[in-house]
Amino acid sequence: MQDKLMLMIPGPTPVPERVLLAMARHPIGHRSGEFSKILEEVMAGLKWLHQTQNEICILCASGTGAMEAGIINFLSPGDKVLVGNNGKFGDRWAKLSRAFGLDVEEITAEWGKALNPEEFREKLEADKEKKIKAVIVTHSETSTGVLNDLETINKHVKAHGEALIIVDAVTSLGAVNVPVDEWGLDVVASGSQKGYMIPPGLGFVAVSEKAWKAYEKATLPKFYLDLGAYRKANAKNSTPFTPPVNLIFALKEALAMMKEEGLENIFARHKRLTQLTREGVKALGLPLFARDEDAALAITAVIPDRHDAETIRATMRKKFDIALAGGQDHLKGKIFRIGHLGFVSERDIHTVLAALRETLAELSS
Amino acid sequence: MQDKLMLMIPGPTPVPERVLLAMARHPIGHRSGEFSKILEEVMAGLKWLHQTQNEICILCASGTGAMEAGIINFLSPGDKVLVGNNGKFGDRWAKLSRAFGLDVEEITAEWGKALNPEEFREKLEADKEKKIKAVIVTHSETSTGVLNDLETINKHVKAHGEALIIVDAVTSLGAVNVPVDEWGLDVVASGSQKGYMIPPGLGFVAVSEKAWKAYEKATLPKFYLDLGAYRKANAKNSTPFTPPVNLIFALKEALAMMKEEGLENIFARHKRLTQLTREGVKALGLPLFARDEDAALAITAVIPDRHDAETIRATMRKKFDIALAGGQDHLKGKIFRIGHLGFVSERDIHTVLAALRETLAELSS
Repeated sequence: MQDKLMLMIPGPTPVPERVLLAMARHPIGHRSGEFSKILEEVMAGLKWLHQTQNEICILCASGTGAMEAGIINFLSPGDKVLVGNNGKFGDRWAKLSRAFGLDVEEITAEWGKALNPEEFREKLEADKEKKIKAVIVTHSETSTGVLNDLETINKHVKAHGEALIIVDAVTSLGAVNVPVDEWGLDVVASGSQKGYMIPPGLGFVAVSEKAWKAYEKATLPKFYLDLGAYRKANAKNSTPFTPPVNLIFALKEALAMMKEEGLENIFARHKRLTQLTREGVKALGLPLFARDEDAALAITAVIPDRHDAETIRATMRKKFDIALAGGQDHLKGKIFRIGHLGFVSERDIHTVLAALRETLAELSS
Repeated sequence: MQDKLMLMIPGPTPVPERVLLAMARHPIGHRSGEFSKILEEVMAGLKWLHQTQNEICILCASGTGAMEAGIINFLSPGDKVLVGNNGKFGDRWAKLSRAFGLDVEEITAEWGKALNPEEFREKLEADKEKKIKAVIVTHSETSTGVLNDLETINKHVKAHGEALIIVDAVTSLGAVNVPVDEWGLDVVASGSQKGYMIPPGLGFVAVSEKAWKAYEKATLPKFYLDLGAYRKANAKNSTPFTPPVNLIFALKEALAMMKEEGLENIFARHKRLTQLTREGVKALGLPLFARDEDAALAITAVIPDRHDAETIRATMRKKFDIALAGGQDHLKGKIFRIGHLGFVSERDIHTVLAALRETLAELSS
């Protein structure tokens, strides 16, 4: 059977029909009054979602572009940064920081384990000369399904006083509580194809007043990703460059849906989906890659035990038209990942678990 | 009457229903075999459109992001570049180049006039030490409706031998002949919301072998816009970062439509639309901003004569639901611009001219 795909990967995530149809509207001029009104409404929705009064910049970029903007706008060549690295994305931010000539010190953990906040505390407390300009943390590590303890790491950053906290919230925002103002998160980057429930193409960066002060002194070169230009345009409900107009239509509709559900309900749903997935996988006799207490609420990584992960994925796809994600880099073939982020219901999890049970039975027979 | 907007601006341009519906499809995984196949097909279509065998990189970025990639990937801090500046976009590339620490020499012309290729020849011939590393030219200057003589300027660049030619083809590709291989254009940047007939959100950069050689030595920092990563991914029909999957669906459909029409027919249609517009506007007694011989085939800038340009635009919008573009920067209120780029037919031009006639009559009464 064709075209009955069920997308259970950590991004792109499933998109509601309401959002797809909003996106299919004919574009309008991005300098029109009508579009300004939409931007104004969308901006209010983004602040609600981020639980912040901070400026939020909307970029035409992937999550990586948003993270790049979140890093290069606030730092200068040679600046020391602490980068948490316990998966593909933490590793990417270390590479990106080095590409821009930053002095990177990594705090690592084995893939599948959470970063230890104590290691951040030690490094930050030892930095008497306040050389550390930023701490870069991946909140939800998509490659392993691990949620890092951002709240505790951030407390140590606050105790340091000087360093900015720069957060990859790409697969946490809209799934897990990320109270930007309450925690005082300086830079929070996210992407549209995740908890937002819209297709890829938009990146978001929320920026605190402290970060804007750092921006004034930061000398890394930038133009397309110069967030100062976005801030200036925001003040006029505009954008510095042509925005992806149709994705903004989609964003408006998705934010409306999120408001209808309510933030607390969204977080509770993701928690329930995660528990259901983990219990169901355990009941099928497959080990989980991350410990219960480190589990990301967006994705569950599963060790296929006696089977090959890619064979399980191929069978799930071929027989049931369910797309799961594979392992990345050295985990390819060793884990598979079930996405339960964004527009996903309990029914979807039961469906995936039922199909997985059938798949395992078939592969074992 | 609501929702009967006619979009006659130089971008976003009108999007065919076929393309909107293709875009409204549910997203699929960007690492799936199905998506790889789509990318392969799209890449062949892009090469056809660019008339090139060069590598083409698909970015999640606006046209400005594509131009930034086209500049920073091939140059190092302090490199000398010649930048043609006869409008808002030429001016932007000069600013962008300076933001990245390039040594910018501008060749200017009054807004509304074409760049003089002779000035490029003189500068390039005088550069015996081959210090000029790149010549940056806006082919079609959207802010003024002027087409620069890229073919001749490029001949002088070729005679220089060392410098790369970097072209902003954002509103020329898909409207005017841009034979990348025949002319030997090194870097050609474009954006989706123009001749491509799809919504904004994708940028394209076509890169010659000579430019890739320069890439190896270029030291400007880059990560998200590092075209080497896109080249590597292209070889596997993939992308380095999550691509805007739904816009790629749209691109596939739009390229199919362009192939059905044929390149020669597309260019001839844009020429006809331009002539119709210019003759019609002249017949209404309004002066044109660019000379006939410099006319861009994507947009016509009109001097409103005794009227205020913004009043004409507001009336056209209010009474006929036709969106025209205004003047930018110091031309605001002094010109208005009629877009005739992409999915525009002769009927559309007659419609706009009829509405403009009524508008002028109303404003004169």
